[in-house]
Amino acid sequence: MSDTKYIYSFGEQTDGDAKLRNLLGGKGANLAEMAKIGLPVPPGFTITTEVCTYFNANEKSCPPSMVDEMNNAIAIVEKELDKKFGDNDNPLLFSVRSGARESMPGMMDTILNLGLNDVTVEGLAKKSGNPRFAYDCYRRFIQMYGDVVMGVQSAHADEHEPFDAILDKIKEEKGVELDSDLSAEDLKELIARFKALIQERTSSQFPQDVKEQLNGAIAAVFGSWSNERAVIYRQKYNIPVEWGTAVNVQAMVFGNMGDTSSTGVAFTRDPANGEKVFYGEYLINAQGEDVVAGIRTPKPIAELATEMPDSHKELVEVCKTLESHFKDMQDFEFTVEDHKLYMLQTRNGKRTGLAAVRLASEMEAEGLIDKKEAVRRIPADSISSLLTPVFDDAGRSKATLIAKGLPAGPGAASGLIVFSAEEAEVQSNKGESVILCRTETSPEDLRGMLASQGILTSRGGVSSHAALVARQLGKVCVCGAQEIVMDYAKKTLTVGDTVLKEFDSLSMDGTTGEVFAGGVDTAPSEVIQVLEGKMEAKDSYTFEIFNKIMNWSDEFRTMKIRTNSDSPSQAELALAFGAEGIGLCRTEHMFFEGDRIDHMREMILSENTEAREAALDKLLPYQKEDFTGLFRSMKGLPVTIRLLDPPLHEFLPHDDSTVRALAEKLGISHEKITERVKALHEENPMLGHRGCRLGISYPEITKMQARAIFEAAATTLKEGIECEPEVMVPLIGFKGELANQVAIIREQADLVQKEQGVEIQYMVGTMIEIPRAALVAEEIAELAEFFSFGTNDLTQTTLGMSRDDAGTFLPNYSDKEIVQGNPFATIDQTGVGKLVKIGAEGGRKTRPNIKLGICGEHGGDPESIKFCNTVPLSYVSCSPNRVPVARLASAQAAILQA
Amino acid sequence: MSDTKYIYSFGEQTDGDAKLRNLLGGKGANLAEMAKIGLPVPPGFTITTEVCTYFNANEKSCPPSMVDEMNNAIAIVEKELDKKFGDNDNPLLFSVRSGARESMPGMMDTILNLGLNDVTVEGLAKKSGNPRFAYDCYRRFIQMYGDVVMGVQSAHADEHEPFDAILDKIKEEKGVELDSDLSAEDLKELIARFKALIQERTSSQFPQDVKEQLNGAIAAVFGSWSNERAVIYRQKYNIPVEWGTAVNVQAMVFGNMGDTSSTGVAFTRDPANGEKVFYGEYLINAQGEDVVAGIRTPKPIAELATEMPDSHKELVEVCKTLESHFKDMQDFEFTVEDHKLYMLQTRNGKRTGLAAVRLASEMEAEGLIDKKEAVRRIPADSISSLLTPVFDDAGRSKATLIAKGLPAGPGAASGLIVFSAEEAEVQSNKGESVILCRTETSPEDLRGMLASQGILTSRGGVSSHAALVARQLGKVCVCGAQEIVMDYAKKTLTVGDTVLKEFDSLSMDGTTGEVFAGGVDTAPSEVIQVLEGKMEAKDSYTFEIFNKIMNWSDEFRTMKIRTNSDSPSQAELALAFGAEGIGLCRTEHMFFEGDRIDHMREMILSENTEAREAALDKLLPYQKEDFTGLFRSMKGLPVTIRLLDPPLHEFLPHDDSTVRALAEKLGISHEKITERVKALHEENPMLGHRGCRLGISYPEITKMQARAIFEAAATTLKEGIECEPEVMVPLIGFKGELANQVAIIREQADLVQKEQGVEIQYMVGTMIEIPRAALVAEEIAELAEFFSFGTNDLTQTTLGMSRDDAGTFLPNYSDKEIVQGNPFATIDQTGVGKLVKIGAEGGRKTRPNIKLGICGEHGGDPESIKFCNTVPLSYVSCSPNRVPVARLASAQAAILQA
Repeated sequence: MSDTKYIYSFGEQTDGDAKLRNLLGGKGANLAEMAKIGLPVPPGFTITTEVCTYFNANEKSCPPSMVDEMNNAIAIVEKELDKKFGDNDNPLLFSVRSGARESMPGMMDTILNLGLNDVTVEGLAKKSGNPRFAYDCYRRFIQMYGDVVMGVQSAHADEHEPFDAILDKIKEEKGVELDSDLSAEDLKELIARFKALIQERTSSQFPQDVKEQLNGAIAAVFGSWSNERAVIYRQKYNIPVEWGTAVNVQAMVFGNMGDTSSTGVAFTRDPANGEKVFYGEYLINAQGEDVVAGIRTPKPIAELATEMPDSHKELVEVCKTLESHFKDMQDFEFTVEDHKLYMLQTRNGKRTGLAAVRLASEMEAEGLIDKKEAVRRIPADSISSLLTPVFDDAGRSKATLIAKGLPAGPGAASGLIVFSAEEAEVQSNKGESVILCRTETSPEDLRGMLASQGILTSRGGVSSHAALVARQLGKVCVCGAQEIVMDYAKKTLTVGDTVLKEFDSLSMDGTTGEVFAGGVDTAPSEVIQVLEGKMEAKDSYTFEIFNKIMNWSDEFRTMKIRTNSDSPSQAELALAFGAEGIGLCRTEHMFFEGDRIDHMREMILSENTEAREAALDKLLPYQKEDFTGLFRSMKGLPVTIRLLDPPLHEFLPHDDSTVRALAEKLGISHEKITERVKALHEENPMLGHRGCRLGISYPEITKMQARAIFEAAATTLKEGIECEPEVMVPLIGFKGELANQVAIIREQADLVQKEQGVEIQYMVGTMIEIPRAALVAEEIAELAEFFSFGTNDLTQTTLGMSRDDAGTFLPNYSDKEIVQGNPFATIDQTGVGKLVKIGAEGGRKTRPNIKLGICGEHGGDPESIKFCNTVPLSYVSCSPNRVPVARLASAQAAILQA
Repeated sequence: MSDTKYIYSFGEQTDGDAKLRNLLGGKGANLAEMAKIGLPVPPGFTITTEVCTYFNANEKSCPPSMVDEMNNAIAIVEKELDKKFGDNDNPLLFSVRSGARESMPGMMDTILNLGLNDVTVEGLAKKSGNPRFAYDCYRRFIQMYGDVVMGVQSAHADEHEPFDAILDKIKEEKGVELDSDLSAEDLKELIARFKALIQERTSSQFPQDVKEQLNGAIAAVFGSWSNERAVIYRQKYNIPVEWGTAVNVQAMVFGNMGDTSSTGVAFTRDPANGEKVFYGEYLINAQGEDVVAGIRTPKPIAELATEMPDSHKELVEVCKTLESHFKDMQDFEFTVEDHKLYMLQTRNGKRTGLAAVRLASEMEAEGLIDKKEAVRRIPADSISSLLTPVFDDAGRSKATLIAKGLPAGPGAASGLIVFSAEEAEVQSNKGESVILCRTETSPEDLRGMLASQGILTSRGGVSSHAALVARQLGKVCVCGAQEIVMDYAKKTLTVGDTVLKEFDSLSMDGTTGEVFAGGVDTAPSEVIQVLEGKMEAKDSYTFEIFNKIMNWSDEFRTMKIRTNSDSPSQAELALAFGAEGIGLCRTEHMFFEGDRIDHMREMILSENTEAREAALDKLLPYQKEDFTGLFRSMKGLPVTIRLLDPPLHEFLPHDDSTVRALAEKLGISHEKITERVKALHEENPMLGHRGCRLGISYPEITKMQARAIFEAAATTLKEGIECEPEVMVPLIGFKGELANQVAIIREQADLVQKEQGVEIQYMVGTMIEIPRAALVAEEIAELAEFFSFGTNDLTQTTLGMSRDDAGTFLPNYSDKEIVQGNPFATIDQTGVGKLVKIGAEGGRKTRPNIKLGICGEHGGDPESIKFCNTVPLSYVSCSPNRVPVARLASAQAAILQA
């Protein structure tokens, strides 16, 4: 026998605990933990994630030594429950469920009621005294097994699910409406037809041997780790394929044993807004899958207090036990079998961004967790959900409210109505905002949900698939809006007399559950209203928790946060959000406004240095004014200004009519402009004449920009405002390039200081954005007083991958799991990150206190910020509205690293 | 006084020697060395290169402590010669010359006859008893000093040199033709006018203080280190600006003291073809500058045996002494002053490629040097001059011989006649071959000479500027073709009745000195004729020395040499040159021939996998045939085949008429093709959908290519020919990409081996050509059995510099010395080289014996090969005709490193 333990029991005998999450998966580990702390868990066992890896590496077979272990584990359950697996008189039934390290709801397969066959079903009927119940279990089992293990499924999208088709037919024949109206005899007939279907479709019989059933189910669950849905989900959440799933085999308990039984899903707090209320839903006389599937709309958990007061009371106690033990909001499944409560699962509840912030804030106040844990726990992106616009009161009062559903994902969303995930993707790729409208959603809809602004369902509760996924994706969601009738065939959405068609406009408020026809005006979030002085801080609980989390973050983080900003208004918003400087001011954006573009074009079309200088002289006052504005807004905080970066052709018109207009305006011939446009054309502009290469070819450009910066600084200083310009030279690859530009910049600094009679504290530094710069950083730092890693371009050059062109192959790479995530969104640590580290080390070697920052879009991405903290960088710089995210993420990075 | 010694004397007291070359410059070190071994060297002293660096860093001033040192050094010379510097009766005169670590002929300034003024000239006249001689020296001195130190020069290109203008005028006034026909009184008049010119142009007087003269001359020489000519020269030869030049101040000796005096330049062997003959030229009654300047055509050195038999005999002895001491061919200057021989300079002679090879070969045979030294000494590029085509006998007999000059740079050249360096550049940039035709050349012509195929002069000997530079640049050169009259104004070249105009065609043979009107047919070089069996080895001395050097190289080198080759004929030539395998077969080249391009286009225009596969099926037999051909030619040597690399749009037509023709041929609509062309357009194709990204998007392409490779291998093996295919996947950045492609390749290998019943020894590896690949080489080597560094693309991505677009700024970078050399020609060791080393280390960490190669164009560049040897790589791969260069260069690299 092998040394490796593949199977862990739980129940009266419990081998594992919550710490073994990687091995047992989340579900298995928590079942063990609940058993240990005395909660009522039906016994069973967990087959480890290692078996999944073995299974996929060994032609879909399990390790031989597992057989004995499993027989032993089954015997333990049999002993505890005094039933026997496959016994004719007193059969033990199992559920078989997946359970990965991270919850992947609905992505993998489940089989219930396993262990029934033509003989044991009779035993169950006799033992329970309820033949209808027994046959109901059996038909459910055959359907699930036939579907999941034996692959009897719809052949194409239009075909009705074949088992459901048979069920519908028999109901029609018997003249009944509900499944539960079918008699035991009807169900027997149904079972016969199900078995015939399986025989017909697979040329195999539905297996009667319960061990064969169990092995088949286990293999199916392991196999489902590699199904398409699971692959897409892993991509979205960067879950490595190597983790694998565990399989949980657990004794069945029955919520479908009649009106003394029920099943439900609940949260210890409201996962949509974070409020501390017992929250969830249940169904009487049902099995767990019925609740989650959204087929019957379940009742709110509060009603259980009336229908099953003892069970409700018991559940409220369970909530307290769970939270005090797990120190987090729990999402759990329960079943009441003939008045007896069983816990089938618990896990940390998925929550919306708002709920995450509120929960962390309140749990700290309750003493459940400390400040550090509160900060650590909030997904950093969550904070931005407190900043998104809301429907304002004026807009709301003008809009047409058509329905109200359950508020399952807070926020405001407007978009075109679409009825299928495919259409959602098509429209979204065209740049449209869409609202995906479905009776209910299923895992197949995932891509469509990702592509939508909001999700609306007419069936299913707050723990339905739609709600669960929307919460996790941070999508606006209203679910179970029962007044709405969706007609997929006609592509209409009807409420009473109101009929909306595909591509009509729809709005919904996921915080209130309101659904409106047409668009609704939005207003800034409360947080922004407070920051802009339009609302009192004391009137906004959202602002209170936002502010609390931000302040805590500042206590922990060690990196500074700057912003990428080109205008005073952007800079002011960023300052209000807590930015501590400007990390990137792109001067080229300033050249497009008003007259400036004409002067810029005149400069580019100049035939010699003198003409170029004349055009630049016209631009100088504008640039000076821009910089003065920025310096004033930043009140002495450092401002990094990057010299002209893009290739010159970007400033010239390319269509004939604009060329003609420009020719007339500048009094230059049409041909000359066309010729210059042609001359400036490049095969690979990304690798062409841009960045410092421009300033070296045309030193007068650098001269003008440097002069504008220093004159603006002098003006600001004379106004009594501190000012700390950092002049940044882009696209440096060679020390000689920097030497050339630094000489021009310092000459202008000296001249302006003499002319204006002021002393300006300034620095000159460089972008590190091409691999060579990182590799020779040691040399470059001899001249550069700071580095700012431009990881947008560094990613393009290091990966040899143009961001503009990668669309043709990068999605395929994600599908095939060749890359993890999108390297343009989250820094590629292994490749680009290695260069950043080489660059940082080089810089520090020459200049131990060199200021190091990042100003690519990665500067606002939490995962990338975590990486930046390990380098470590002095600061990250991001767009103004990402500043709060960056503050929180860098606090988390600091905590993680300490 | 400072501790640093700035001045080194030579003469009876000699402080330095040849080992102090870096400090004393080449000239200074060798003057010291000659003095030490007893050769007759006029005494003097050398101011070190450190002073040059000090001078340029300290606002053009010399270290204060140098003054005393210099006075002391002057005193030593005065004592040895019993003359005094500035003495009225017995004045000591000096020459002041530059002398860098590497000789930079004609690039910097020289002043002769320094120490003359209105008083000392009288002393010299009396002392020498030759007033004409004294005034001749004085007028020469004033002209040189006025030009070099005081900057009295032509104001623009058309102006006659102002001193020469005065000289011409006075000759006209006096009715004489030669300078030497002017009397002492005429020269006095000339001197007065020269001084007036200086006064007029500079508002300063020509200095009478000899110390002031000396200081001015020294400053001018140090300053000339930074003149434009010198900068361009340093770029061409990668000489760092930090080296600086030394200044040599040496007692004047006079070759212009009458007919018992002479001056000359000579070589211990023929620098054009390497033959062991005493070689050079001289002028009676002249100073050294007259010989080099090419103004008077000097006489061949053999004639000195008649004119001055004793001096000639003495010189032949000097040759022996020099070669046996310096162990290399020497290029020396001498002056005979009234029968007494003086040595003014010696240095290793510049030589043509052919001469370099022959000299090394013969010196080894003579026992002067050993094999290792012979190999070490030949500039590796030289070997290719033995491979260039020659005018064949048939062509020569048909051509019109118009003149014969001195064979100063061997080889055959044909091109358009141009008469100025500027025009040479203009035409060369247009892609034309040009022959630069000048009466004589000067340092200003350097860029034009670089741009020309060949250089023809009508004046000047084999040590004229034209010959010297042509030798060093490896240019074909015929000089001193005196029958030819160049008329720059009319732009004609006349010989007797034959008048050729600008842009007429001209040919010349630099090995024989023949000049032909029109073009002349060429034949392969003797070496290639022997290798191709068209000539007996024993009949070609060129082949003998080529072969000898190649065999010696093979004894020393440790890297293998492969070739980049796509066809059997290329492969066979490379094999004959000694290639040991194919390092890069670019399969895409195979898709352009004949019908293939249609099938390729059909494939690209396919709308689905099936259609693509059908088109690929048509390409398969062609690919298989190509590979079979290569395997057969390579007879068991390894063949690396790179899978499809370029973006697909490169295979589609872009002009409308070809699109229409293609549409008709393939029966596809014109619109569909245009649409596909548009869809395939990329912003930055260099960073786009190409390389392995194609094979991942369209696995059927990889499948077809892999199948073709293995089927070809099976066919070859069945023919009894060994065969070792190495399948190379391009543009890998992620391990997952390689995993994807390796799976397809190995599957095809397994299938073909089963189908054909043969076992194929093959490897699968990857290009390392984007920075990420080098950074994560450790991971990639888990799957790659070999790496080939594709330094073309690696340079583009690491430097963020598109080769196609860099033309707009890279030349400016060279001018400003921001980059050393061209990074696309010689590997950028600091940046790209660092990545190569990181990649090699990573690869070896995972797979200690991993095969490492290079297949970029750097693989044929000697400097880059030197770098490759330090990595070390297993092999370099280059184009077939670079194989001999690579063999020699890698031997040199191995010797250098050992």
